[in-house]
Amino acid sequence: MIKLTILSDEASEIAEELHKSIAESNTLKGTNNQPLIAIDQVTSQPDDVDTENVSVLLSDPDLASIIIDKCSALTWCQSTWAGNAPLLNAGKTDYILTGLKGVFGKLMREYVFAYLLQHARNTKAFEENQRATAPRWQASPRLPLNGQTLGIVGLGSIGQALIPVAHAFGMTVIGLTRSGNQVEGAECVYTPSDIKAFSSACDHVVNLMPDTPTTQNLLSDEFFNALKPHSVFINAGRGSAVDDDALLNALDRGTFAHAVLDVFRHEPLPSSHRFWRHPNVTVTAHTAAESQPGDIARVFLENAARYLEHLPLKYQLDFAKGY
Amino acid sequence: MIKLTILSDEASEIAEELHKSIAESNTLKGTNNQPLIAIDQVTSQPDDVDTENVSVLLSDPDLASIIIDKCSALTWCQSTWAGNAPLLNAGKTDYILTGLKGVFGKLMREYVFAYLLQHARNTKAFEENQRATAPRWQASPRLPLNGQTLGIVGLGSIGQALIPVAHAFGMTVIGLTRSGNQVEGAECVYTPSDIKAFSSACDHVVNLMPDTPTTQNLLSDEFFNALKPHSVFINAGRGSAVDDDALLNALDRGTFAHAVLDVFRHEPLPSSHRFWRHPNVTVTAHTAAESQPGDIARVFLENAARYLEHLPLKYQLDFAKGY
Repeated sequence: MIKLTILSDEASEIAEELHKSIAESNTLKGTNNQPLIAIDQVTSQPDDVDTENVSVLLSDPDLASIIIDKCSALTWCQSTWAGNAPLLNAGKTDYILTGLKGVFGKLMREYVFAYLLQHARNTKAFEENQRATAPRWQASPRLPLNGQTLGIVGLGSIGQALIPVAHAFGMTVIGLTRSGNQVEGAECVYTPSDIKAFSSACDHVVNLMPDTPTTQNLLSDEFFNALKPHSVFINAGRGSAVDDDALLNALDRGTFAHAVLDVFRHEPLPSSHRFWRHPNVTVTAHTAAESQPGDIARVFLENAARYLEHLPLKYQLDFAKGY
Repeated sequence: MIKLTILSDEASEIAEELHKSIAESNTLKGTNNQPLIAIDQVTSQPDDVDTENVSVLLSDPDLASIIIDKCSALTWCQSTWAGNAPLLNAGKTDYILTGLKGVFGKLMREYVFAYLLQHARNTKAFEENQRATAPRWQASPRLPLNGQTLGIVGLGSIGQALIPVAHAFGMTVIGLTRSGNQVEGAECVYTPSDIKAFSSACDHVVNLMPDTPTTQNLLSDEFFNALKPHSVFINAGRGSAVDDDALLNALDRGTFAHAVLDVFRHEPLPSSHRFWRHPNVTVTAHTAAESQPGDIARVFLENAARYLEHLPLKYQLDFAKGY
């Protein structure tokens, strides 16, 4: 039997999805047809949580990190996010922390290719041709993705979800990861010590590295200066991986063409930050791949079934490695 | 031995590509290492062509149609376009006409998904958030392609090139063709008599039908009225397939969301046409998949090698069928 606390900005939406799925499920009920999961607390306010009685927590990691120290009876926390730095850095490590995985790839691939294709097809120029006072029937320049090389920094489940799409567009994929281990579908996987060679081999680059101590400022002068004048750089991993000044300096010199940024050192991105006003920077609001209540409920229930059977949980995070 | 006339807006670029490839090729030379292809005339002006001496013509079909009747010695014309209505309707049929195929799919898939993803990811709203006087950190609504159904009208080589990309994005593909014959990767293929059932089953639709008498106004009220409020319609086939008024009426009533139009009944699209100014219409300049001189040269030389060996040519067009 699981007594569940939900602490999230979307707590009630998640609870609703869980109630629906539990009612429909045959496997999550006991001998008397009683649900094996009881939703005990549902709140978006950390202060509301009866911390002493929390054993299983389904939570946004930023909210959970505020009260996690007081949850002395906690055995398992299922996070609602992909990136879990707030909990991985919170100090407490005597419980099982599981991330939200396998649900972001399908959204991330649409984000990444929306912006790669916007650039490749020069849709803004065609939009200007159309909206001009005298509309212009004109072939503005384009540069196909077909035949180009996409570099992916961080080839976890989200990064790997981009590979089949890149291949379908006739692109070659290369990667950069901490281990440099081969990944199916990637021609070559570099390590951070070869970052310049990696960067020079790419037409476009997507960063999807999580926020760990070793990825801080990983993408700095050496990386940006080796890009190409037509290159698009997309950051949908974590803001801390990018040296903002190095990015802007390279962009201002025309070293690469355009930056698409979804994540930042400080979020929301302060309105005074140069990124907002730079003509060659696209800013989105950490919206590339957002957790959906339905996905959160599904992953939690999948793990809850394993928990009830005393099986190892999926998507466990390692406090030592930091991801 | 082939004596070649090139008549095209890009005649000199095509000639240059041919010279380069012929110089590098071993198979296009005879016993004395003499090229088996001699480029005789290179022009963009139909009046310049010495019509009596044309035997093999590599030409834009609109230009060729002006002089084709006078080319009494013509045996083969390789077109530089995918759509060949000007020559198919010109009256003369006593020669072999080959189209340009197998080169447009790679460009078309980028055009189609650039605009499907622009809509799915609502990139214009995020652009407005960024460019506002006070930039807005805001999650504007999006609707993923994942799980949606893409309808393709016309499943020739170009239409089929969209299928692997649609699948990579987690979409289902259905088709509409004259024959209704099964096509690999399409769940279901409808015929024009079932156009309403086809249209109702689609989230988004791309038209790639060629211009033939049977496709005139194929996409009219019945088709547009069965689309969904979130549907995007893309026309990159031929303008004559679309009933412009039916499209605009459906759009104005909110029957579907957005039209992306690359082809029109009259090109360039007259500046007075409502399409240019409609907020839910994107106009591009028949630029979705343009013939590239390198691709034209490659397809011509592939067929020239077959011509010299007296083998059947590839991509032959049928004057009776009209495609």
